[in-house]
Amino acid sequence: MVFEFVPKKLTKDSFKPFGQVIERNEAERILINEGTTERFHDLANVDVKSNNGCPIISIFRGQPRPQPIKIKMMERHPLGSQAFMPLQNQSYYVVVAEEAAEVNPMDLHVFLANGNQGVNYNRNIWHHPLLVSQENNEFLVIDRGGVEDNCEEHWFTEQQGFAELNIK
Amino acid sequence: MVFEFVPKKLTKDSFKPFGQVIERNEAERILINEGTTERFHDLANVDVKSNNGCPIISIFRGQPRPQPIKIKMMERHPLGSQAFMPLQNQSYYVVVAEEAAEVNPMDLHVFLANGNQGVNYNRNIWHHPLLVSQENNEFLVIDRGGVEDNCEEHWFTEQQGFAELNIK
Repeated sequence: MVFEFVPKKLTKDSFKPFGQVIERNEAERILINEGTTERFHDLANVDVKSNNGCPIISIFRGQPRPQPIKIKMMERHPLGSQAFMPLQNQSYYVVVAEEAAEVNPMDLHVFLANGNQGVNYNRNIWHHPLLVSQENNEFLVIDRGGVEDNCEEHWFTEQQGFAELNIK
Repeated sequence: MVFEFVPKKLTKDSFKPFGQVIERNEAERILINEGTTERFHDLANVDVKSNNGCPIISIFRGQPRPQPIKIKMMERHPLGSQAFMPLQNQSYYVVVAEEAAEVNPMDLHVFLANGNQGVNYNRNIWHHPLLVSQENNEFLVIDRGGVEDNCEEHWFTEQQGFAELNIK
C-alpha cells in the first residue's frame, strides 16, 4: 500500500504538534549592539538535559534521494530535541508524525520548508531523516550529546506499506 | 591613541585561546542516513549550564558599521559560551582578547572569518559585538538563556584609546 502526500507549506501553527519553526518574526525583534543588530530571540525549545545530556552543534550535508521520494522508515530521539537550520537558502522536506507508540505511513505529515526556515523536532517526535532538494545542502544541527542510545528507528512493515512524496 | 589591526585569516589553531571555529573538516565526517548525509560532528563546546542556564537558539541580523570600523568597547558573557554561524555565505570580522580582568585595545586579536566559518566564544572571553561586511547579514546564534545578568561591557577609556580595523 502506498500513501501519497503533497507537501504542505510549513508554518509555525501547522508544525506546533511536532516542534518549532525557527524563523525571523519581524514583529518580535529586539534591537541590540547600538542599533546595528536585530535579535530574533529564543526561537526553539532546546530540550537536551535529560540523563545529563548536553547541547552539541554539528553540520549536516545532505544529498537528494531519487524521485519519487519514498518514506520507508521514521526515527525519533527519546532523550532530546533536534534542530536543523539551513545554511543555504534552499527548500527541503520535513516528514513527521504525532507522538505515538507506533508510527504508520498513513499518519505522516509532510511539509515543504523554505530556505529561511529551520525546524526543531521536539523530543520523541517521529521524523524522517534529512530530505534535501539540492545537492550538498547544508544545515546547522543542534541536538543532544551523550553516551546513551538516543535514536530509535522504525522501518515500515510490508503490511504498513510506505509513503511517497508527490512533488510537482 | 589608535591601535590599527589588519584582520588575519581565521583558523582553528589561531582561534583556540578564544573558542572554536565551527567549520566542516572533510577528514572527520561521518556518513549517516543510508549514506545520504555527511555529519560533521560536535564542532563547538556549548557551555551554558552554569546557574541552571539553558541553551537557546536565536537569529541575529547585522548591519555594517561605518568604515573605518572603530573598536571602542568589548563585551563578555561570564555565564556562558556564545556561538555564531553565518546563514549567508558572507565574510565577517571577529575581534577578541585573551581572558583577563581588564581588556585593552592594544591586546586585541582581529580575524576575518569566511562565510562558511562560525565561531563559538568560550565563556568569559572578551569579544566585540557582531561586525558584518554586508547588509542584512544573518547568523544563527546559540547561547545561554537565563534570568541572570550575563553581559559585561567595557568601554575603552580615553587613556586606553581605541582600535581601528585596517580593511583593504
